[in-house]
Amino acid sequence: VAITTIGHDGDDTLWHSENHFAVTTERLVELLHPWVEEPTGAGPVSTEEMLVSIERRNLALLGYGVKSFTLSMIETAIEASGGRIPASAIEEIMGWGRELLDHPVELLDGVAKTIETLSGRYELVLITKGDLLHQESKIAQSGIEASFDGIEIVSEKDPVTYRRVLGRRSVDPGRFVMVGNSVRSDVLPVLELGAHAVHVPYQVTWALEHHDSTTGVAPSFATLGSISELPSALDEIEARAGS
Amino acid sequence: VAITTIGHDGDDTLWHSENHFAVTTERLVELLHPWVEEPTGAGPVSTEEMLVSIERRNLALLGYGVKSFTLSMIETAIEASGGRIPASAIEEIMGWGRELLDHPVELLDGVAKTIETLSGRYELVLITKGDLLHQESKIAQSGIEASFDGIEIVSEKDPVTYRRVLGRRSVDPGRFVMVGNSVRSDVLPVLELGAHAVHVPYQVTWALEHHDSTTGVAPSFATLGSISELPSALDEIEARAGS
Repeated sequence: VAITTIGHDGDDTLWHSENHFAVTTERLVELLHPWVEEPTGAGPVSTEEMLVSIERRNLALLGYGVKSFTLSMIETAIEASGGRIPASAIEEIMGWGRELLDHPVELLDGVAKTIETLSGRYELVLITKGDLLHQESKIAQSGIEASFDGIEIVSEKDPVTYRRVLGRRSVDPGRFVMVGNSVRSDVLPVLELGAHAVHVPYQVTWALEHHDSTTGVAPSFATLGSISELPSALDEIEARAGS
Repeated sequence: VAITTIGHDGDDTLWHSENHFAVTTERLVELLHPWVEEPTGAGPVSTEEMLVSIERRNLALLGYGVKSFTLSMIETAIEASGGRIPASAIEEIMGWGRELLDHPVELLDGVAKTIETLSGRYELVLITKGDLLHQESKIAQSGIEASFDGIEIVSEKDPVTYRRVLGRRSVDPGRFVMVGNSVRSDVLPVLELGAHAVHVPYQVTWALEHHDSTTGVAPSFATLGSISELPSALDEIEARAGS
């Protein structure tokens, strides 16, 4: 069976994203420092932990993306300060949200060359989640949009979504490989459909993308050190699939 | 030329939306009342005017939808109060945002029956803008999702977007009719492509959907009092198109 179609995640697979969120989280911790008590033993949680738990609580209603993150930061500021945070601090947080939305797109090392190599050999589909407008704007700025045969901006990356995307394009799961930095979103749901997946970890993983590797059967997928190794990893998948 | 495909807007065409935003805006005006000075003659603008101008300023970066509206309300609260608004008021505004996202979907009068009537005769496509997750959730709750042959959630309703949607479905513009409450988003860009449009006004129109009817050539389209008149309006379009 020959591989015909490669799905690429966007954030932290093709371009930097999570590093900007991490820097912004550090700024939030610093901003709130005068208003929160330090966690001590079984005491209150840290600001980072509170932010992650508020993001998790908001996920079903707000979904992914910078606007949701900004609203969760504001909620954290109010909750962590016991309602004492001044409007000027909220204003500063909203400015960080705008910076995140307005940040220039920086491709990861090796992305431009790898996408160029693959675009002649495979149908390439960009499959990304987050704010519709922000993802569209990042794709338009990326300089590699023309190499993709299709773009799918989705609200969640679960087996149902991947099945819908493949069905709409009449792609057999056995001929599809998904490439991304998140085991939870880019690898496991794709393997569940009988498709292939390649994991290319990013330098930092958002807490809500962490997966619990201690339960269930260990799934089988390749993990690469860089996207530059992708063409040969695809050759191996084809060889193993007996094409 | 026979009409084959009908595009339907969602918010304020199939289900109520703007009335909830209008009620929330009234709440914001009331909440901010103690902190703002009343506008006098050439003096400061009203809270509503300030909100609309902040929404307009944020549109290119934040896009449409409830999360953007919530962020714009918070910005208005800070700006209108000169930074004196307390965190408890910001918290209240964020609660209104959650209420808007969580509000049950209420179909407009005549929608269920009209969509049922049309679904056997035409290909029906829902074309809506706003938050990806929120629009998906409203469609899923609407009870009429199964009558649609396709769903397109877009970041902007301009001629480029409509051309892309029609192209992907291989629909000739001359065979397409768009139905919606916004002349700016549902009618004018569609007429520009040489397709047809039917305007079904809602009881209230968001300021950013207002269009300037005093400039340019008056375009030709039907305006209906209710979506129930749509089947006969479509017959008239077909008759005029000489099918």
